[in-house]
Amino acid sequence: MKRILLTIEYDGTRYAGWQRQNNGLAVQQVLETALARATGQASHLTGASRTDAGVHALGQRAHFDTASNIPDEKWPFVLNTLLPPDIRVTVSQRVSDALHARFDAQQKTYEYRILNRRHNSALRHSFCAFVPLPLDVDRMRQAARDLVGRHDFAAFQAAGGNARTTVRTIHSALLTQQGDELVLKVCGDAFLYNMVRIIAGTLIAIGQGKLDTDAFRRALDSKDRLDLGITAPACGLCLVRVDYEGLP
Amino acid sequence: MKRILLTIEYDGTRYAGWQRQNNGLAVQQVLETALARATGQASHLTGASRTDAGVHALGQRAHFDTASNIPDEKWPFVLNTLLPPDIRVTVSQRVSDALHARFDAQQKTYEYRILNRRHNSALRHSFCAFVPLPLDVDRMRQAARDLVGRHDFAAFQAAGGNARTTVRTIHSALLTQQGDELVLKVCGDAFLYNMVRIIAGTLIAIGQGKLDTDAFRRALDSKDRLDLGITAPACGLCLVRVDYEGLP
Repeated sequence: MKRILLTIEYDGTRYAGWQRQNNGLAVQQVLETALARATGQASHLTGASRTDAGVHALGQRAHFDTASNIPDEKWPFVLNTLLPPDIRVTVSQRVSDALHARFDAQQKTYEYRILNRRHNSALRHSFCAFVPLPLDVDRMRQAARDLVGRHDFAAFQAAGGNARTTVRTIHSALLTQQGDELVLKVCGDAFLYNMVRIIAGTLIAIGQGKLDTDAFRRALDSKDRLDLGITAPACGLCLVRVDYEGLP
Repeated sequence: MKRILLTIEYDGTRYAGWQRQNNGLAVQQVLETALARATGQASHLTGASRTDAGVHALGQRAHFDTASNIPDEKWPFVLNTLLPPDIRVTVSQRVSDALHARFDAQQKTYEYRILNRRHNSALRHSFCAFVPLPLDVDRMRQAARDLVGRHDFAAFQAAGGNARTTVRTIHSALLTQQGDELVLKVCGDAFLYNMVRIIAGTLIAIGQGKLDTDAFRRALDSKDRLDLGITAPACGLCLVRVDYEGLP
């Protein structure tokens, strides 16, 4: 047996999220079915991040164990012929049997896209949250700075989160303007349930003048979810990359 | 009665093209249904370009005549509530009763996107042609220069084209690299049936070394379709804009 780590891109629009569940098709399930067809053996895939329904990934990572003699780096070629076009395996590599895709993830990077123009886009509506009224980007940028660092993000999680600790380190939180899109790129050691979408929803409220620019700082102190904005829509979120120590 | 010109964005993936037809749902038909619901009257919409099944638009234009008292610039707000999310009206304006969206189009701009990397993209497969082997972009750029100018493009049309003349003027044909995408942007007074897709397919063949860099020049001389490459897939093509004299 050897352990293989996959890098996976998916359009989450028609999936019930990463994790196998009863009420809809999950990305994990589609991949496990393709793995079983490729190897003739049932395989369990462990993902780095349990993305929600409608959330996308450019660089999800997941590991599995196999006795197959498919060469370590050839899995994308084998699996992509068995997968629907909205799921692609882009890289495969052999890793240590001790590496765990979820518990050993050292750093994750998410992007949240906000389309800020008068009418929604026919081409990008599945990949952006749509905000028709102009946003004050300077206010949003100023607020985002307070996220960086090691903090107790207890206020920044949806009901249903069951993390043992709510202390997380955010390495960077940058807001850039790309044409008519505002892109929040946030990088941290780990994230609580819905944390990036709550950050995005709060930034939108700050950009609209509905919340003050010190909303994040206040919520870090109060640990009260109600000091923050609504959870922004899933479609704007994308898991861009997951990093492991010593791995490309 | 007054004449209204719409600017329309659509994701062509699930449509049988712009023009109303028997074998599938057309974008024109969906828009005409929305217009009829908005005004209570049947409306005929005349598009600038009859894009094929699977082809996208950022700036299709179409005119219709109406007696409605909906303010001239408010049509996007009215129609977008009645349209599916993969069709958006982005601008409306009143124009002269003599303006014809198709016959008065002075200039059209198309983009053709080629994803050039090892594996296809789960997020962009509907918006790019996928070419897994590396392309020689310098060769493609060199070839594209021969397209610019006033030429007889008789070789550059699919069977079924019924243009009276095959002389067209290409104002510019630029190939740029945007990350892992090659984007051909071509601007001209008008285009023959499948012309941009034939140009894109030929450029890909040139980039792969299957055709010489003088393929376009030879086909302009020979007027022989067989001197060019295959017609590249519809999904890579997008009608970016249509210009009219004196109109924004």
